[in-house]
Amino acid sequence: MTEFSKIDHQMMARAIQLAKCGEYTTSPNPNVGCVISDRQGVILGEGWHKKAGAPHAEVHALQQAGEFSKGATAYVTLEPCSHYGKTPPCADALIEAGVTRVVAAMVDPNPVVSGKGLIKLQEAGIKTEHGLLQASAEQLNRGFIKRMRTGLPWVTVKLAASLDGKTALKNGISQWITGPQARQDVQRHRARSCAILSGSGTVIADNPMLNVRYSELNLNDDVLAQKDLRQPLRVLLDGRNQLPASLNCLRSFENNLAGNVLLVNGQPSEHLFEQHVSQWQAPFIGNKLDLNKVMTKLGEMQLNNIWVEAGGKLAGALLQNKLIDELILYQAPKLIGGAGQNLFDSIPIEVMDEVIELTWTDIRQVGSDIKMTALINN
Amino acid sequence: MTEFSKIDHQMMARAIQLAKCGEYTTSPNPNVGCVISDRQGVILGEGWHKKAGAPHAEVHALQQAGEFSKGATAYVTLEPCSHYGKTPPCADALIEAGVTRVVAAMVDPNPVVSGKGLIKLQEAGIKTEHGLLQASAEQLNRGFIKRMRTGLPWVTVKLAASLDGKTALKNGISQWITGPQARQDVQRHRARSCAILSGSGTVIADNPMLNVRYSELNLNDDVLAQKDLRQPLRVLLDGRNQLPASLNCLRSFENNLAGNVLLVNGQPSEHLFEQHVSQWQAPFIGNKLDLNKVMTKLGEMQLNNIWVEAGGKLAGALLQNKLIDELILYQAPKLIGGAGQNLFDSIPIEVMDEVIELTWTDIRQVGSDIKMTALINN
Repeated sequence: MTEFSKIDHQMMARAIQLAKCGEYTTSPNPNVGCVISDRQGVILGEGWHKKAGAPHAEVHALQQAGEFSKGATAYVTLEPCSHYGKTPPCADALIEAGVTRVVAAMVDPNPVVSGKGLIKLQEAGIKTEHGLLQASAEQLNRGFIKRMRTGLPWVTVKLAASLDGKTALKNGISQWITGPQARQDVQRHRARSCAILSGSGTVIADNPMLNVRYSELNLNDDVLAQKDLRQPLRVLLDGRNQLPASLNCLRSFENNLAGNVLLVNGQPSEHLFEQHVSQWQAPFIGNKLDLNKVMTKLGEMQLNNIWVEAGGKLAGALLQNKLIDELILYQAPKLIGGAGQNLFDSIPIEVMDEVIELTWTDIRQVGSDIKMTALINN
Repeated sequence: MTEFSKIDHQMMARAIQLAKCGEYTTSPNPNVGCVISDRQGVILGEGWHKKAGAPHAEVHALQQAGEFSKGATAYVTLEPCSHYGKTPPCADALIEAGVTRVVAAMVDPNPVVSGKGLIKLQEAGIKTEHGLLQASAEQLNRGFIKRMRTGLPWVTVKLAASLDGKTALKNGISQWITGPQARQDVQRHRARSCAILSGSGTVIADNPMLNVRYSELNLNDDVLAQKDLRQPLRVLLDGRNQLPASLNCLRSFENNLAGNVLLVNGQPSEHLFEQHVSQWQAPFIGNKLDLNKVMTKLGEMQLNNIWVEAGGKLAGALLQNKLIDELILYQAPKLIGGAGQNLFDSIPIEVMDEVIELTWTDIRQVGSDIKMTALINN
């Protein structure tokens, strides 16, 4: 295990901070940050990756450092690439610039190229190390990493309920259980996601736009220009072709401001949809969409993070299929009583050992609601 | 509004700390602490009330201060009493000792005597003030205060559920949803309560002792001797006379170690119970116990704080009758699914404005569970 110095830690922490600047824009690429510094920890260049096709973090940092890159150390949150993609390999750029040491927080999660960037650097005589602040670096790109390793996207299910675990009254009324701050927080999560997934029941009942209202996010205009922002793909599961073309989601807006829609159904819809709507006929298991196949498809479409806003039926089905990685529950200071609607549909459990276990990762107050984040121990 | 000094605040904070020493023993009396100090904040005497019949906080503090009480200030968390109860009035003792200023955190909540202690002191030429750290002082004696003002006890309902709000599997299995630390925390709440209330369904299903296992509380032996500890009264609601005499609660133990039981039913039970079990026939509304009358009875019995451990039926009925002051929910990092049992039975709610609103007062992790405390805005 390499021993990293205090300066190493400081530089990599800064690189991780930089990487986060891309959280709303890099998809399907990972968030990456880079710092070039001398041995005393004087920062010579900084960079982060903004979006696919644009220069990588290393290129920005090397440009800023210019001549000073010679003999310097490059800290990168992800192993520099060694292959030609939309841009030339960063390993070559680092070699050319004359850096003498490269520290990566983690190696590339793609098993086909993992480690190759570091080897290329070593072969050019550059000292390489990795594993510094790895857990934090992995946190930046959970979806990208999972997709590279398994082909499947990272799935976060968002739930909103009363303290007694009810998402709506018996009659289906759910607007609004949680407060405005929680709903604004949801906008931020939507904006960080590659796709927002919902089911026909929720879409028909609430008729939501399911897009990002960027004006509510208070983004820093200096860092992110309007033109860089994108709308997540809206994925609507509609196994029984119930969705009418008049729904808010399916209406078109000038400049496609609300983003694209993928309708997942069993047979092509007979409706004439606008241009932003495409369809995919998914396989079925019995009379239900095969959710595993749906997620595989979304992975193939290079979607890293799926944000699910759904009712108890779809949430329960995803849970039973072990397709949920993370839960975010906004709990309102309210009681609805036993007749209200459940967070998850019935799961066949007979003994306490079979209950689904979670690991808390965050609990905080958001406005008047409590936001509870947990990973599912699948 | 009186302006209190920094020394005043420090002295009263200490008095409140002292009052808390009595939290396991003073019932049905309130927790009270007292500090005697000079103007520079040098503490001359301290005291707290241990149990009914034993000397009040002021008497302990005056004894400790002795001669130094002359010209000193007495800080008391509750207005000194002016009447003869089981012990002589504290106001007289303060006058006799020669203190020249008395600061009370709050006046007596009993409308019949409220303010009389301070007036007695004023008539003796002592300067009196009140209202310092009043909110903290009220927190010490929520049950006593509510009973004095309304005749009803303070009711806290304890709940334990999975993150999706289920208290048990569909088949009724509930042991154990929460972890050992949460269950130990429950012991501490039981010990602070005057009575533990449960319903026949829960008692038959789980066959609990519903008493305090003091050995689990790690109490400070220097402060509280074994002989001072008491078991809360166990109140079992059994409207249909379903409880068999063989239940753990109803068995007797040497020295009555497990405490007394009050069976609340509709007609006298035909079972022969042990001596620690008494019965009370409550009025009915339709075929159900009149819960308002039950709580009034418990208030008349001088029970300040009722700790409820019950299933969704009783919890739901208490909720609908607006008899719950506070909820404590231990939420386990688990999911049970929609078929599990609800925290509260159905409540008739048709629009979002009718949901029951709560106010969070505390959220913390206890072992692997999250403990959420909230007041009900009745």
